Order: sequence, then C-alpha cells, then structure tokens
Amino acid sequence: MATEFDLIKRFFSRPVSASLLGGGDDCALFGVTPGLQVATSTDLLLEGRHFFSDVDPRSLGHKALAVNLSDLAAMGARPLGCLLGLGLPAIDEAWVKQFAEGFYALADQHGCALIGGDTTRSLQGITLSVTVFGEVEPNLALRRNAAQVGDDIWVSGVLGAADIACRMLAGEIPLVTELLQATRSALEWPTPRVELGQQVRAHAHAAIDVSDGLLQDLGHILAASGVGAELQEPLLPLHPALTGLSKHTLPPEVLRRAVLAGGDVYELCFTAAPEQRATLETIGQTLGVALTCIGTIRKESGLVVYDQAGMAIPELPGGFDHFRP
Amino acid sequence: MATEFDLIKRFFSRPVSASLLGGGDDCALFGVTPGLQVATSTDLLLEGRHFFSDVDPRSLGHKALAVNLSDLAAMGARPLGCLLGLGLPAIDEAWVKQFAEGFYALADQHGCALIGGDTTRSLQGITLSVTVFGEVEPNLALRRNAAQVGDDIWVSGVLGAADIACRMLAGEIPLVTELLQATRSALEWPTPRVELGQQVRAHAHAAIDVSDGLLQDLGHILAASGVGAELQEPLLPLHPALTGLSKHTLPPEVLRRAVLAGGDVYELCFTAAPEQRATLETIGQTLGVALTCIGTIRKESGLVVYDQAGMAIPELPGGFDHFRP
Repeated sequence: MATEFDLIKRFFSRPVSASLLGGGDDCALFGVTPGLQVATSTDLLLEGRHFFSDVDPRSLGHKALAVNLSDLAAMGARPLGCLLGLGLPAIDEAWVKQFAEGFYALADQHGCALIGGDTTRSLQGITLSVTVFGEVEPNLALRRNAAQVGDDIWVSGVLGAADIACRMLAGEIPLVTELLQATRSALEWPTPRVELGQQVRAHAHAAIDVSDGLLQDLGHILAASGVGAELQEPLLPLHPALTGLSKHTLPPEVLRRAVLAGGDVYELCFTAAPEQRATLETIGQTLGVALTCIGTIRKESGLVVYDQAGMAIPELPGGFDHFRP
Repeated sequence: MATEFDLIKRFFSRPVSASLLGGGDDCALFGVTPGLQVATSTDLLLEGRHFFSDVDPRSLGHKALAVNLSDLAAMGARPLGCLLGLGLPAIDEAWVKQFAEGFYALADQHGCALIGGDTTRSLQGITLSVTVFGEVEPNLALRRNAAQVGDDIWVSGVLGAADIACRMLAGEIPLVTELLQATRSALEWPTPRVELGQQVRAHAHAAIDVSDGLLQDLGHILAASGVGAELQEPLLPLHPALTGLSKHTLPPEVLRRAVLAGGDVYELCFTAAPEQRATLETIGQTLGVALTCIGTIRKESGLVVYDQAGMAIPELPGGFDHFRP
C-alpha cells in the first residue's frame, strides 16, 4: 500500500527553483525582493461545501489554487509560491494524479511554485487548504479602503455563470443541459486575474475579488472606504450564455441574483478615477480581459442599483455568508 | 444569528503591528528584514484524526499554532505571523472564544501575529489549517540534510508522554487516571522550542522536530544527509511520569514504543559536532530546556538503538504514517 510519503514524493515533488527550498524539510524557504512586502492568503475548501464530491479532480486542483491566486490579484501582488494542505479519506492514486495536474498547470502558468504542504488522512471528506505568497511594493498594494468619491467602478470579465451552474448542479434551479454546459467552466475553471491586478495597481484606488458576489464584495470596499456607490444594472457584463434566454429557461430574478450576488466569481472589482479610463481600457485590451465600467463611487453611504428603467431596485439579492443558514 | 463576519470580527480581529496588514483585505501583508528569507509551514488538523471531538478548545487553539511554530523552530527561524483557516460545523460562540484565547496566548508569547485567514462552515467535523511565517538568514536555516559523521545527536525536553496520553484517551491501552493526568498536558499543550531553535542554529548541523516520532524523524535526517546513527536507549530522556511505574501499569514494550516512536512530540532533534557540547549545554540551561545527547551519527547507513544491556534492539517500533492503516 502506498504511504503518505510515497504519495507526496510521486505527485507533489516537482523541482523548484534554486531560490526556493521545496517540500521535504520542516519549513519551505523563499526569498523576497529586497524592499517588497509579502502578500499572503489562505483558503479552506471542503467537500460538500465548496465543491461537489464528484468534481473533476483536475478542475478541483485548478480551482483550489485559482481562488487563492485571485486574492493576490486583488492586491496587485506578483505570485512567489504556495503551500497545499491535502486531507484525503483514502489514497486514490488516479484522483491525486489528476488533482496534481490541475494544480501544477495553473501554478506553472503564474510562476507560483508549490514549495511545501501537509498531507493527511481525513476521516470525513476531502479537505483542502491552499496558502499563496506574493510580493508587492509597500504602499502600492491594492486595498479595500482606498475608494474615492467620483471613482468609476470597474469589473473584469463577465458575471453570473458560476452561480447558475452551481445552482443547477445543486438542484436549486431546473437543470438545462445546454446552459449547464455553457456555464460550468466558469464554476470549475475560474481564471484568476493575476496579471490584470498587477497592471491596474498603479491606476486603481481600491480593489477586491468578487468571490462572495459583486454586491457583498463591493460592499466591503464601500464600508472600508467610508463611501457609497451606484451601479447601473444594464451595464453589468453578462456571461454570453445568459443572454437572450426565455423567462422559462432563466427567470429574471434568478439571473439578477446570479449577476449581482452570485459568489465564486474570481473577477476583480476595482475603483479608479475617471481620468484613468483610456489607460484601463488599453490594459484590458492588451491582456484580452474585458473591463467594464459599471457605476460610480458617491459620497452618500449605501449601494443603489438602477435597473433598465432607471429605477432603484428596491430589494437587492443578498450576498454569500458561509454561516448563514 | 451571528454571521461569519461577526464571528471573525469578534474573536479574530485583534490589532496587529503597523508593519503588518491584518485580516480584512484580500491578502495579509507583512515585511521581511532585508536579506532574510521567509520560512513557512502549514498543517491541517482534522477532528477525529488529530484531536478528539471533546478536546478543550483552548488547548486546541494552542496546539494548532504550536505544531506550526515547532516547524519554524526546527529551521531556527524567528516567527513573523500566521494565518488561520477554521471550518466549523456550527457557530458555538463559547467554543470559538476559548479557541481564540488559546491561539492568541501562544501567538503573543512568540510575537507571531494572526494576520489573516478563512472561516467557513464545515459539513463534517472541525477543520483547522494554520500557516506560519518566520524569517531566517539565508544558508543558516537548520536543514535535515546537514548531519555529519561523528555528530552528537541531541533531543530537547522529555519523551513518551504524549503517546501514552493519546493511547489512553483512544482506549488503546488501559486508562490509568493518575498517569493520564500527568501526561495529558504533553499531548494537549505542547511547547514549541522556538527560542531554542534560533539559539542552536549557529551551533547545530541538522535539525527536525519529533512530530512523527523520534525514530521516523531522525530517519528523515539520516536519509537526507546520507548517514546512519546509533542511539543509546538508556540515555533517552523520559517524561518523569513514565519512570518507576510497574510493568502492570505500563508494559515495557508500550513505554519503548512511546519513547522511540510516539508522535505528537514537539521537541527538537538535532545534530552537532562534539566540540559544541559545552555551548549547547549552556544554551539549554539559559533557556531552562533540558538538552540530552542520545547518540551519534555514523557513516554506516541505518539506525541502531542499543538497550540497557548494550544489545541492538532487533525490532524497532514503527513511526507514524498518516496513510498507514
């Protein structure tokens, strides 16, 4: 029978660069460019809570790292490395191999070496913890508390698909095969906006990733910055699979909730002075990432969303809270 | 009902020093002394696997951090900060409060600020992940691969108690109330040897913490360094509660296994040239930590343990492997 150490050795011991000491000692070591700060984030991903038991292990490996890289992106930090904690009910070598493939493929893409971790048997479900490190110039990290009155509010990519796919898979809304096929990759293969975060850093004021849903995460920026905001619902960038559907296939209230409050979206929401528009549009075009201006930071507290008719939406859909029933 | 954010705010948002940005943004930020490397380690702790469901939450908070600080200690790194991932089946405020107290008390003691983390609801048991960061001079970190032939082998503190307490609580050996009382704190309130690791760093060659048991962890040093070792069983420092007991209370083979192979021991095992003896003894005395020379690194591969009669023990008890049945 394979042991823990065999498993680690076989699937998680790729060579790392000379500046890093990889797994196999009590700690991993890494260097930081002198004068820069370390940005770090950790996420727990639990079976049944954050992913379905039958998820493709490749996509799970990808996503476990992606959600953490997205936090680095939201600070404008450059990835340096990561740690992986892996609790498994049993050794399924094919599963671990595919998980590692998904994880490493994304890590390689961003130069984020896996330098250490912990592997253990779980008596419950699959348990993942990923910690990432990046580096960033002091005082240049994108923070939540720096939005200024009059700022444009931007969002990258498109919205809504991950929520729709998740609710179909969970049986909360009717499963429409074509719609699931078109939205599922948004849920399972999110693209962290690592390069975008670094490039907009010098031009944006505040930033966050939309992992808990646009309204809730923008709300964090507003609260931390002591400002309010208004959004224009017609400007919100919809995932193409969500446009032009009948009310029967996708009721408008389900779509609205997905776009405004759907979590698991690893796009960046950031604020910037209106003078930055041309620069930001160029950055988006260069990187091939859609950047959409969706509203404005205002002095009055609160968050108002105007619908197609120019009316404030009276009851906004709620965000995501891990402890809400 | 309390929400995730309330919970984090109430129990895990103590102020951190100005050089650190604490929880509440996408990432935590910390500075590193220019020229030093970052040492980092992460551990997963799962209910039913690494701790009993009815464990005192204060001791669990302490231990979750202690096992990670012990990894920094084994590299000789100075703690900078930590991240906590906390998956809970439900919100039990009293439990969280006590867990936080235990965690912060140890963090404060070592200047290891809690700068960020992740809180989520777990559908299974309590799930913890802790990641620590420290700093250390490049090329001065204590590694596993640096033991040299002729080195003394040292161990800090005393051995055996955590294993005995754990087996009594798990029902694997008969529960003797007095013995459990005397050994339980070794299991639940381990002392990471953080200061010791930093002080012996300049004098030791290789080091590891004994979290998986003395034989297995020393075995990692031997394998990484390409050397062998001999240990003298009579020299091994026993926890005082384990001495002078009748064979009925504690059979000799149970004691031997606890001392040689018992895991969950957060003492340091390190090797150093014999010329360092006086210096190391002074360090131990200054810190009030027992340091015991228990054997010698030798050229011949393998690990031999000599018993009281000077005979090599033919069958050594096995170490700890999380995936072994």
